Amino acid sequence: MIRHIDQGLSQLNQKLLTMAGLVEQAVECATDAWRFRNMAKIADVYSIERRVNQCHLDVDAACVQLLALQAPMAKDLRFIVSCIKINNDLERMVDLAVNIANNTEFYLQAPTAIHIEDLSQMSDEVRIMVREVLDAFVKTDERLARRVLSRDDRVDAYKRKIVEDCLGQMKNKPDRIEQGMNLIFIAKNLERIGDHATNIAEDVIFSASGQDIRHAVPTPPKENDSAE
Amino acid sequence: MIRHIDQGLSQLNQKLLTMAGLVEQAVECATDAWRFRNMAKIADVYSIERRVNQCHLDVDAACVQLLALQAPMAKDLRFIVSCIKINNDLERMVDLAVNIANNTEFYLQAPTAIHIEDLSQMSDEVRIMVREVLDAFVKTDERLARRVLSRDDRVDAYKRKIVEDCLGQMKNKPDRIEQGMNLIFIAKNLERIGDHATNIAEDVIFSASGQDIRHAVPTPPKENDSAE
Repeated sequence: MIRHIDQGLSQLNQKLLTMAGLVEQAVECATDAWRFRNMAKIADVYSIERRVNQCHLDVDAACVQLLALQAPMAKDLRFIVSCIKINNDLERMVDLAVNIANNTEFYLQAPTAIHIEDLSQMSDEVRIMVREVLDAFVKTDERLARRVLSRDDRVDAYKRKIVEDCLGQMKNKPDRIEQGMNLIFIAKNLERIGDHATNIAEDVIFSASGQDIRHAVPTPPKENDSAE
Repeated sequence: MIRHIDQGLSQLNQKLLTMAGLVEQAVECATDAWRFRNMAKIADVYSIERRVNQCHLDVDAACVQLLALQAPMAKDLRFIVSCIKINNDLERMVDLAVNIANNTEFYLQAPTAIHIEDLSQMSDEVRIMVREVLDAFVKTDERLARRVLSRDDRVDAYKRKIVEDCLGQMKNKPDRIEQGMNLIFIAKNLERIGDHATNIAEDVIFSASGQDIRHAVPTPPKENDSAE
């Protein structure tokens, strides 16, 4: 039997997938702009952001409408509540892609004096996180969502190393301090995109199983890292 | 007539207020730790964070339960959906207070070599935003929520000026680059706390009036500011 709510849920799912696809594209454009010194990709990020902002409003409106008209229960309700949160994370992710585009714009104004190889690897890792978590969402795949969580430590380790490397180079070339800071900001924005992917993975697990795993692991002891 | 849902809504409101009070306290402790070089306040931030994390789970569970059992409509539904979002913003705010505490811990390890007067004023402004937006939430006061929105530009202007000042001082004192960077990070974390206060203000307006004002103003033209 096809329930009336199923049509609404499927439309909501479709809206969120369109949005997620755009966010993935924005992250790719932003990191490619920096990596390949491609200014055209920066403009792409800004134009994708405007479309994501419209999706953000549409998804929220669809969630409220479904809650109001269908009085969903159990798994349907968890799915809609997860969509409200994922919608928020996706919108923040595109904002972070815009930040990276801004950083890149300033970074590219001067010839490269500071170069950090790890940043390419970090951006690959974050892009995989984004792709995998959206895949986990599409397939409601709890196992894949848990794999995304495990990647986050690697991303954090990259960020710590990049900050350290940048600081070293900035000390040797004080006239390139802005450029080094821009790379640090790019690394931090990538790290935050990874954090949002982690949030989405937690929501996918909640939506699939009803299990709320947030804050389950106590915060690890602080390392000597000031780059929060 | 007292409706059955009213009791649940009032309990939810109370939970969120307790959480909001803790977040306000965490922001105060974090900024005081830096301003008065008071290490004891840093420990307070960490202990408040653990309590906020528990509230975060409780509030979400209460929202899902109300949606499942009461099938709320119109204003009640908008209130619960807003609570889901505000809960998220409050949890992020306490994380940012923890970041400031971390930055402060490293900043205080060396005698002050870089000092930025505007940072005190910026933290005052952000604390006012936090206090006002929680007040707007308690009173469902749309006018006050709009006042919070107007403060955000001032906070952004402070951040831009602080980044510029720090970079200038870092160039003159390359051995103090980490210290300058920590101050920049504190300013950026404060700015993000202000952004979350803005999100909450938008949710209060939505809850009170049903009007979704997010993304209503087109993004202003970019200034020469790389500190995103």
